[in-house]
Amino acid sequence: MGLEFDVLATSAGGGRRGRMHLPHRTVETPVFMPVGTAGTVKAVSQDVLEELGAEIILGNTYHLYLRPGHEAIRRMGGLHKFISWPRAMLTDSGGFQVFSLSALRKVTDEGVRFRSHLDGSSHFFTPEHSIDVQIALGADIVMAFDECTEYPAERGRAKESLRLTMAWARRSLDHFNAHCHEVPWFSELNENWVPQVRVFGPGIELRRQSLFGIVQGGTYLDLRRESAERLVEMGFDGYAIGGLSVGEPREKTLEMIAEVLPLLPADKPRYLMGVGYPDEIEEYAQMGVDMMDCVLPTRAARHGLLFTSEGRLNIKGARLAEDQGPPDPACNCPVCRRYSRAYLRHLMHCGEPLSATLNTIHNLAYYLGIMERVRKSLHLEG
Amino acid sequence: MGLEFDVLATSAGGGRRGRMHLPHRTVETPVFMPVGTAGTVKAVSQDVLEELGAEIILGNTYHLYLRPGHEAIRRMGGLHKFISWPRAMLTDSGGFQVFSLSALRKVTDEGVRFRSHLDGSSHFFTPEHSIDVQIALGADIVMAFDECTEYPAERGRAKESLRLTMAWARRSLDHFNAHCHEVPWFSELNENWVPQVRVFGPGIELRRQSLFGIVQGGTYLDLRRESAERLVEMGFDGYAIGGLSVGEPREKTLEMIAEVLPLLPADKPRYLMGVGYPDEIEEYAQMGVDMMDCVLPTRAARHGLLFTSEGRLNIKGARLAEDQGPPDPACNCPVCRRYSRAYLRHLMHCGEPLSATLNTIHNLAYYLGIMERVRKSLHLEG
Repeated sequence: MGLEFDVLATSAGGGRRGRMHLPHRTVETPVFMPVGTAGTVKAVSQDVLEELGAEIILGNTYHLYLRPGHEAIRRMGGLHKFISWPRAMLTDSGGFQVFSLSALRKVTDEGVRFRSHLDGSSHFFTPEHSIDVQIALGADIVMAFDECTEYPAERGRAKESLRLTMAWARRSLDHFNAHCHEVPWFSELNENWVPQVRVFGPGIELRRQSLFGIVQGGTYLDLRRESAERLVEMGFDGYAIGGLSVGEPREKTLEMIAEVLPLLPADKPRYLMGVGYPDEIEEYAQMGVDMMDCVLPTRAARHGLLFTSEGRLNIKGARLAEDQGPPDPACNCPVCRRYSRAYLRHLMHCGEPLSATLNTIHNLAYYLGIMERVRKSLHLEG
Repeated sequence: MGLEFDVLATSAGGGRRGRMHLPHRTVETPVFMPVGTAGTVKAVSQDVLEELGAEIILGNTYHLYLRPGHEAIRRMGGLHKFISWPRAMLTDSGGFQVFSLSALRKVTDEGVRFRSHLDGSSHFFTPEHSIDVQIALGADIVMAFDECTEYPAERGRAKESLRLTMAWARRSLDHFNAHCHEVPWFSELNENWVPQVRVFGPGIELRRQSLFGIVQGGTYLDLRRESAERLVEMGFDGYAIGGLSVGEPREKTLEMIAEVLPLLPADKPRYLMGVGYPDEIEEYAQMGVDMMDCVLPTRAARHGLLFTSEGRLNIKGARLAEDQGPPDPACNCPVCRRYSRAYLRHLMHCGEPLSATLNTIHNLAYYLGIMERVRKSLHLEG
């Protein structure tokens, strides 16, 4: 059995307060998912993520496939166990990174041949292979292999790209249905060491991973519609909107989201991929998006950009040199409770590793806090 | 009033189980002090240091003087408040870093002119200035300004260096006595933000910083004796042994320590600077050293070298790629309780920032654990 999704309340604007039951966690939605590219949310330890209330994190299939390799992770009991993360997890299909990071890509109907950005080695990804890798990783939610249409894209190009994505969605689904029982949960091979963190709950053997299809179609309303309708026809456990926030104007993003959301089944979770700024994630959640992920809070943190209730704060600023106030006076995160702007500025100025850690903790707390507020408001409204 | 030191038990081998009452903390000795060079123990947050049981950490005067500057730290209420560390702290005199890090040093009887390793700017440190800076930083324990005699050093050179160090010790002490009331504790300037971490306990205004003298003399027993005797005559709150573990053979180190310790007052703490490997800190504590510091556990961690009950572990090793055992099976630290060798290897292999954090947490736990065991054994023996 895949995920179960309860919609607890719906607002006039379409926003949904929901609850998503996954093998490793019941996740309260709308939810923001921190990105843990290579099996770690950069600079933050798993116990801090738990303390911050992160219920589901992302892993990147492309990165984990290259290092340490999905077969190694399978042999070690799956990604949850490998990184000691007992809560929910989602892996992307690897498609986005193949197109954005790797070199010398060659796309055919069959799949994509590419060279690793790490060592130039040659690899071939097909929908079937992406699903195999994701089953080996064993995340609670896995994604169909797609081509993320670039922006701008001519209509002909967007249409051809969508044709590929739809064919790959079908193949992803068929392969998933045939192989989803191969997930490494409960492999007896992996009982040689039991960490003090329990990553498998009782009854997990009765649950399977869930597969999401991805709506593409560039910035063409009719292609987006066609994409949504065909995916719904195939029948996935949830639906994602991909290929947005890739450079298009924000009105376009909104237009596409507003067009697609009503076409998706109300009883399945809806995941908007790769967004966004604080005001965006709030707005999209109010429109009915249940799940979002973005590298922005973590990446910006490492560059000294903090998101606060008073707006963006460049922690490198010289005017903060003796500012003893907390990074965000309205924030109750472990960083704002303990450290001053002057100290965070000093750490960044000195290139200290603690800088990335503390900045990231605050930004994640800020993003998770936004979603918590949105959930409360949707509950009251609904 | 400076520190109070109680010797609770003494072993036949000279080891002492003690208790050192400092303004910010009563510290159980023998104690290992993690090094927090620029106001941060690299890659580890203050709450984790507390969780690990670190009772006293070091700050480096040279680094903090250059960035963010001691006057800025004074204006912000001192180093404890600046970095939000409520427990005890010790600052070195800056001498060692002036000699090891800076460029174009010119030493005279008056002091040392040097250029910053950061931007080449010119600075002049005297014993008086070092003490002024350390009073501004406001650590619980401050160190006399000394010249760390290099190894090897001819007798004439060691003698001349010692002459300088003894003259500087006198000037450090006189200046400290005249100015120790200027410590920034309780400055009213600094009440604009009170973090949720209380860095000043009740009654702290009745206590002052403590000043330690530093025994030098290279590897010459008679110079070491002369140095110890003259410092004891001057009368410090505690005594350090410097200029060891700088390249000399270990028998020499031991010989110098064994010679000096009996010359120091039994009722004052004894601090051996800049050592060492796990077996060394245990041995020296058993001989009667009360305090030690070293960058080894933190620096080695960042290079992937873990200290374990089974010996040294190079976490980069390919043979660990699928090793699901904890870094040290006998260790109960937060890292060994939760993560596997394979995961730590993966993090290091990928250059992930979490690698330095987790490796450092384990190494510090290992070092602090050694001292805890030594304290227990000394208590039983004594």
